Amino acid sequence: MDIISTAKAHGGTQGVYSYPSAALNGEMTFAAFMPPQSADGAVPVLWYLSGLTCTHANVMDKGEYRAAAAQHGIAIVCPDTSPRGDNITDDESWQLGQGAGFYVDATEAPWAAHYQMNTAVHSDLREVVAENFDVDLNRQGIFGHSMGGHGALIAALRDPERFKSCSAFAPIVNPSTAEWSRGAFCAYLGNDESEWAQWDAVRLIESGARFSEFLVDQGTADSFLDDGLRPWLLDEACKAADIPLTLRMQDSYDHSYNFISTFMADHIAWHAECLKV
Amino acid sequence: MDIISTAKAHGGTQGVYSYPSAALNGEMTFAAFMPPQSADGAVPVLWYLSGLTCTHANVMDKGEYRAAAAQHGIAIVCPDTSPRGDNITDDESWQLGQGAGFYVDATEAPWAAHYQMNTAVHSDLREVVAENFDVDLNRQGIFGHSMGGHGALIAALRDPERFKSCSAFAPIVNPSTAEWSRGAFCAYLGNDESEWAQWDAVRLIESGARFSEFLVDQGTADSFLDDGLRPWLLDEACKAADIPLTLRMQDSYDHSYNFISTFMADHIAWHAECLKV
Repeated sequence: MDIISTAKAHGGTQGVYSYPSAALNGEMTFAAFMPPQSADGAVPVLWYLSGLTCTHANVMDKGEYRAAAAQHGIAIVCPDTSPRGDNITDDESWQLGQGAGFYVDATEAPWAAHYQMNTAVHSDLREVVAENFDVDLNRQGIFGHSMGGHGALIAALRDPERFKSCSAFAPIVNPSTAEWSRGAFCAYLGNDESEWAQWDAVRLIESGARFSEFLVDQGTADSFLDDGLRPWLLDEACKAADIPLTLRMQDSYDHSYNFISTFMADHIAWHAECLKV
Repeated sequence: MDIISTAKAHGGTQGVYSYPSAALNGEMTFAAFMPPQSADGAVPVLWYLSGLTCTHANVMDKGEYRAAAAQHGIAIVCPDTSPRGDNITDDESWQLGQGAGFYVDATEAPWAAHYQMNTAVHSDLREVVAENFDVDLNRQGIFGHSMGGHGALIAALRDPERFKSCSAFAPIVNPSTAEWSRGAFCAYLGNDESEWAQWDAVRLIESGARFSEFLVDQGTADSFLDDGLRPWLLDEACKAADIPLTLRMQDSYDHSYNFISTFMADHIAWHAECLKV
């Protein structure tokens, strides 16, 4: 693992790191904040997955997570959203290719050669973080925004033993049926939509996947609300499956980091409670 | 005044605005956060001046000021650091020209035509803010970072009736003698160094200027500490002049927004107390 930068922040250390990822067949860059409590031993770890067009840096710069993470003694790890590089397949659309990995393992050419973001984040990166930081893997939570909210929801539903908590800001809850994600799912996973269900929160729940509890915040002034996000579909699926969901419609908030940063401390406090810090 | 963008954040409104500035002979762009309390009447206003290379956007994105400003009910206004545009004189150095206005009114050609940042911020922008936002001009504070810390200190010393509070993150306290600011002072103000004293916090104090109290945070791992910043010169000047200065050397912090954002809430709480919110 290479250290790209480190700086003291809120009593802890905000770093940026990279390493050669086998899953991506290329380099993975991620941000990690270690709270001051990590000087005294292993701390819980909360994985943050970012949205379309983002790198590891957007939430690190604008997410305002460090004060709350330092207060509660939680490490925050923020991976990139796709493989990167001039030699990596890309697309002109911001909804496909670099910056738009959708946290799936692609099966279709040419994407499958590098776009293995599920394995990259949940296997490769987990190992790198466990080796290089003093984190307690028995206390892991996950959250994210938009495409990363989708990533957090499916991670929790696919591996409910690993994650003790899951929340999301304005997540894509049913990417199989959302116009802005169907193109990427076709490209990465092929045209057989039955194969998409394992990467779709609503369809995972409909197929029997369960999780302890979700917290979701959604701005009412979010321009993607009706076409891409549609949190009511998650609400319906959770109700039918008896999964507790706290869905908060936040008046007049949009899809930006102004929204995310407003509720960031709330989410971290909620995860801290779930992780019994 | 044109509205470039607005978004709800931390219960208030984060906006970006622009207007034709007579002082700059060009456009001024600034960020303004209005806290939720402004719905009920005029709120105090805290001016934030940014450092070299910054625009209005850096502290808006990375400064983490909104939570504390909303808590204390204070408006935060963040101007750009210089005139901007293809037709505006610039320089290859990051310490002169666009992004490096140093909050002075230039007297020398070709800079004087546009580089009137003192008048632009403290006259033009004050009027625009007073006209367009419900702020209480009897309760104004000022703070800033690096070159903007210099700007805040000289603003308070030059107009102690207007500003009720002043603090700084890693300020340039004695730009007349710092290698990284002498070039800009020569260019903007000419070679007669006696003319520079009115734009230099230490020299203003030595010449009799006074202010009620200063709060300064400075990171010990700041790579500009010894050459550009040297807060001990402010400490000596304040002691000789009986100006209360709280100078906090913050262990292992650097010059970045990781440092600024860590102590932002502290500074806003301190200003709130001074402004008797």
